[in-house]
Amino acid sequence: MKKFAVILAGCGVFDGAEIHEAVLTLLAIQKLGGRYQIFAPDIWQHHVVNHITGEEMPEKRNVLIESARIARGSIKDLKTLHAEDFDGVIFPGGFGVAKNLCNWAFKGPDCEVNPLVARVIKDTLEAGKPIGAMCIAPVLLGKVLGAVDITIGADPGDARKVEQMGSHHVNTTHGQVVKDKNYKIFTTPCYQLAANLLDIAMDTELLVKEMMDIQQPRSFISLR
Amino acid sequence: MKKFAVILAGCGVFDGAEIHEAVLTLLAIQKLGGRYQIFAPDIWQHHVVNHITGEEMPEKRNVLIESARIARGSIKDLKTLHAEDFDGVIFPGGFGVAKNLCNWAFKGPDCEVNPLVARVIKDTLEAGKPIGAMCIAPVLLGKVLGAVDITIGADPGDARKVEQMGSHHVNTTHGQVVKDKNYKIFTTPCYQLAANLLDIAMDTELLVKEMMDIQQPRSFISLR
Repeated sequence: MKKFAVILAGCGVFDGAEIHEAVLTLLAIQKLGGRYQIFAPDIWQHHVVNHITGEEMPEKRNVLIESARIARGSIKDLKTLHAEDFDGVIFPGGFGVAKNLCNWAFKGPDCEVNPLVARVIKDTLEAGKPIGAMCIAPVLLGKVLGAVDITIGADPGDARKVEQMGSHHVNTTHGQVVKDKNYKIFTTPCYQLAANLLDIAMDTELLVKEMMDIQQPRSFISLR
Repeated sequence: MKKFAVILAGCGVFDGAEIHEAVLTLLAIQKLGGRYQIFAPDIWQHHVVNHITGEEMPEKRNVLIESARIARGSIKDLKTLHAEDFDGVIFPGGFGVAKNLCNWAFKGPDCEVNPLVARVIKDTLEAGKPIGAMCIAPVLLGKVLGAVDITIGADPGDARKVEQMGSHHVNTTHGQVVKDKNYKIFTTPCYQLAANLLDIAMDTELLVKEMMDIQQPRSFISLR
């Protein structure tokens, strides 16, 4: 039974993990016969957003504690994630990825990636395991890896920003998963495009299926 | 295309709506060809719980604003819900139902139900529309309606409490939906039993299917 690490960035599309993508990723893993462990970094959210008005709220919330809502309490600190314990790592999307796991929302292609997140990405690929990322989360892979094929949907402005990191953006619609030529990375658009829950269920399931179907490690990849 | 009102009690199993049940209810509605509008009451949560430790946090959160996280901002105040605009009303579970929509968590069978929630339940049934409730949410129906057949799983203590309200508790396992003899109410256990996401997907889908399959209103029911 394959076991995946699912990394969350909070709880709520505008300041955390996109909830539908997160839940439907977990469902897809179980539906395809796998299991999961959820992780999140123990850091403060960039901010807290009122999801009705879109305005910032005068509050402080912790990414690990808020992510635990989606995990029903069964969550671990990201710093305890060891790539060798899992058959792959998955990043659902949401603005929290672009605000808490990196600062793409504010700096675009000049963003910095949280060092722990960057380490997990490198460790996972070096261990010969796949990484899946959906919605805006593929920018983490572009920033850490540079020349990779990824998708964050089909917006020309977004595509240009991805290319500015040295990555290659592939325009996608729902039901498509982009596979990189060199690294075992898989990306799919989800809510980067207009979507309903059926689209998200389809994209997440296809992504997980691709990750489950891959065979043994290719040749060792060093990212240091 | 049938349209359902989905009523949330916050965002997170221990102080709000159970997130998996909420999301998979929305998915089930779309999968079966329907659509939805999400509602929540504009009230303070009873409290805020750290979902890792289970401890209360020194914060105040609003049920409508937090529920909006699951709704991606597309949510309405429960006081604007008119039963005639929908083909049915659905209550996902979570402790928030037992803490925010009523106080079952503290008073059990002696609980009070939020007056707005009680009105929605009565209006919906009087309009000949069905109500679905999962997990702990069926206690709302038991308290408001009295002599009805409902399930909140299979725990003898829970069953006894339900009977103390004058309701009839039916023990269930996953994949079962309890239908009342008189009212168009449908209940299913979800996370009141040990469950994984596949169980929740099954229970929610069966519940929504039963609600979609029912025919025109039975005779008018007065609950005043």
